[in-house]
Amino acid sequence: MTYHDRNAAGSAEHEEKLRRLAMVAVRTGLGLKAGQELVMTAPLDAVPLARAITDEAYRAGASLVTVFYTDETAALSRFENASDGAFDTAAGWLYEGMAAAFRSGAARLAIAGDDPSLLAGQDADKVARANRARSKAYVPALEMIAGFATNWTIVSAATPAWARTVFPGESEDAAVARLWDAIFQASRVDRDDPVEAWARHNGELRRRTKELNARRYAALRFRGPGTDLTVGLADDHEWHGGATTAKNGIVCNANIPTEEVFTTPHKARVSGHVTSTKPLSYQGTLIEEIRVRFEEGRIVEAKARTGEAVLQKVLETDEGARRLGEVALVPHSSPISASGLLFYNTLYDENAACHIALGQAYSKCIRDGLSLSEAELVARGCNRSLIHIDWMIGSGEIDIDGLAADGSATPVMRAGEWAA
Amino acid sequence: MTYHDRNAAGSAEHEEKLRRLAMVAVRTGLGLKAGQELVMTAPLDAVPLARAITDEAYRAGASLVTVFYTDETAALSRFENASDGAFDTAAGWLYEGMAAAFRSGAARLAIAGDDPSLLAGQDADKVARANRARSKAYVPALEMIAGFATNWTIVSAATPAWARTVFPGESEDAAVARLWDAIFQASRVDRDDPVEAWARHNGELRRRTKELNARRYAALRFRGPGTDLTVGLADDHEWHGGATTAKNGIVCNANIPTEEVFTTPHKARVSGHVTSTKPLSYQGTLIEEIRVRFEEGRIVEAKARTGEAVLQKVLETDEGARRLGEVALVPHSSPISASGLLFYNTLYDENAACHIALGQAYSKCIRDGLSLSEAELVARGCNRSLIHIDWMIGSGEIDIDGLAADGSATPVMRAGEWAA
Repeated sequence: MTYHDRNAAGSAEHEEKLRRLAMVAVRTGLGLKAGQELVMTAPLDAVPLARAITDEAYRAGASLVTVFYTDETAALSRFENASDGAFDTAAGWLYEGMAAAFRSGAARLAIAGDDPSLLAGQDADKVARANRARSKAYVPALEMIAGFATNWTIVSAATPAWARTVFPGESEDAAVARLWDAIFQASRVDRDDPVEAWARHNGELRRRTKELNARRYAALRFRGPGTDLTVGLADDHEWHGGATTAKNGIVCNANIPTEEVFTTPHKARVSGHVTSTKPLSYQGTLIEEIRVRFEEGRIVEAKARTGEAVLQKVLETDEGARRLGEVALVPHSSPISASGLLFYNTLYDENAACHIALGQAYSKCIRDGLSLSEAELVARGCNRSLIHIDWMIGSGEIDIDGLAADGSATPVMRAGEWAA
Repeated sequence: MTYHDRNAAGSAEHEEKLRRLAMVAVRTGLGLKAGQELVMTAPLDAVPLARAITDEAYRAGASLVTVFYTDETAALSRFENASDGAFDTAAGWLYEGMAAAFRSGAARLAIAGDDPSLLAGQDADKVARANRARSKAYVPALEMIAGFATNWTIVSAATPAWARTVFPGESEDAAVARLWDAIFQASRVDRDDPVEAWARHNGELRRRTKELNARRYAALRFRGPGTDLTVGLADDHEWHGGATTAKNGIVCNANIPTEEVFTTPHKARVSGHVTSTKPLSYQGTLIEEIRVRFEEGRIVEAKARTGEAVLQKVLETDEGARRLGEVALVPHSSPISASGLLFYNTLYDENAACHIALGQAYSKCIRDGLSLSEAELVARGCNRSLIHIDWMIGSGEIDIDGLAADGSATPVMRAGEWAA
């Protein structure tokens, strides 16, 4: 008996699309090798997709699939019922265990679908303490993920809470159906051969990164409404996009979908001011209209129209939380941007617009970065932090120039589109 | 928002009983201390009970509750889709992580509710290999549980697959409702003050164990249809029942419900033959009418009417799998026996009848056993194995004598009831 028999919900057509999304997740996302273990995390509302991925992973030769279901109701119960002393505890033993699994060769898959405003009504200090404790405990696993020690991917499932946020005017069933449609489309599972469609798309992203790597800009300058920001790029930076070869030699697509090309800024060479162009949904709180000013790489002023208290707490996480760990370019005409939807979910919204990330930089965005020591990475300008939070600064009104070492400017994007 | 709002299913009355069962689990079962972490495992079909326990644990001062949901559909997918090489892999990193959590002070709660015949149709060799790999990987955590390094408990939830097995003639909804009634009754949550009712019951079990400890029998002899078995007791054995004080000083009830008193047989002093009186449900296979013969503590002949292949594989797990690790006495008139139901679930059926267990012995059933070395425990006759599997040998037709060191016999039970 498979999950099809046990879950009356969902038409045969929907089940087939789930199967195709699972195929994209396992083959394109993970590139799962026969004999590999798979460690999966998933919201309880994503059981049918988690089961479809489990089936597909076993068919691809997985030796064991372990799924950790996360329960937002239980997470909320802590804020509603636990005593004040509870919020500095995190399951370090679990993240150590996951890191041990990765060290022994396991692949990693996350199904995203969180309620974007789950913790919106909760005490900001408790939320920050809980997030900080978890971020700190998660370091052993995060380092292996960020360093591509193993092959990993993130895909999304249309959960009711998320769907209600994206489509507030619809009934829950209609909202979930519309969000699934958007996910299936963005994940290219509606193509005749989704895995082949991903191979072609990866080829286009590779061509774009090669071009940017050849140009070797010292910095990018973003200009638009509320924004004049110069982002110095790290020494020996490399642009990446689409598929990545992990340290274990397996080619994976860490995000499904992905439309971005991205690299590592220099942690001390960012200056100017920037305004966010889409809301940031951060662990249950919606942070809108972020406005920050950088001096010598460091945020020295930060405001937001909503969620400012949470933003301030985020910036206090550690020294690296005030500096950039990523800059990414996405044309305004990208399919996700073209959908016109605001997803309140980084995996989608970051693929609709150019963005920057506070916190931890990806070692792979430095030449030979996966083989460099921590000190060597920092010397090249790589930022280090417990956090990595993307937020959107691109739109149809943004111009971007590439600045050479001598200060001469070349158009990279005009009105949100590639200049060449 | 709590789970009440999110799950339309279940009346307010049912929710209240779940809350009371959660209270018994957290206060009587775990004796959870403020500031403790809690590690829970639960079937996906037990989400409402897991959430009620989470709420109750946070109210009792838990710092963090982590729930691992197990998915029988995913477990089955492995047998249906994985390649032959997959079945020797287990999530050792996860069990090491759980052991680390216990070492750092976490309590442990398991919600039982497995489908008794989930793997009945699967290849016995693959089932045995998967079980063996998991049992071996689980050792670090099992040793801490069996040795009561921390406070722990098991409670049950009425899952559809289990309910269908217990009440095959009923509709699924009716079967689930009847099984919940049986669970609530056996767990004493229908009493005015369930926690106080458990305190009284623990007092009665303590009186019975004190009496048996005073008598210091060298062996017990079981006689009845198909059975004439002499079970030598370990040197310095101690009888236990009801509440246990774990090594961390916390008083817990490891099984909810529990009606048994039990101790450790001597691994080399069991002889004669015995026939099971209830089916054994072992990790998805139903093993009925087990008949085995012991010589010098070791099973030298084993048959079963159904599931014999799985039984034989179990006995091949390791040397200790052929020897006894527990003997337990339960009067035939116990409330669970009086229900007249066959639960196909050890937690229930073992509390309806006298039973023995193959495999690992409980160190606490030796005087000062939790402080003794492994060698000292083995010297007293404690059995060691990767497994611990209870099966029922009691009924209304069984007589039990206590044998003193000089061979003189005293009646302990007659026709399944306490003789005095």
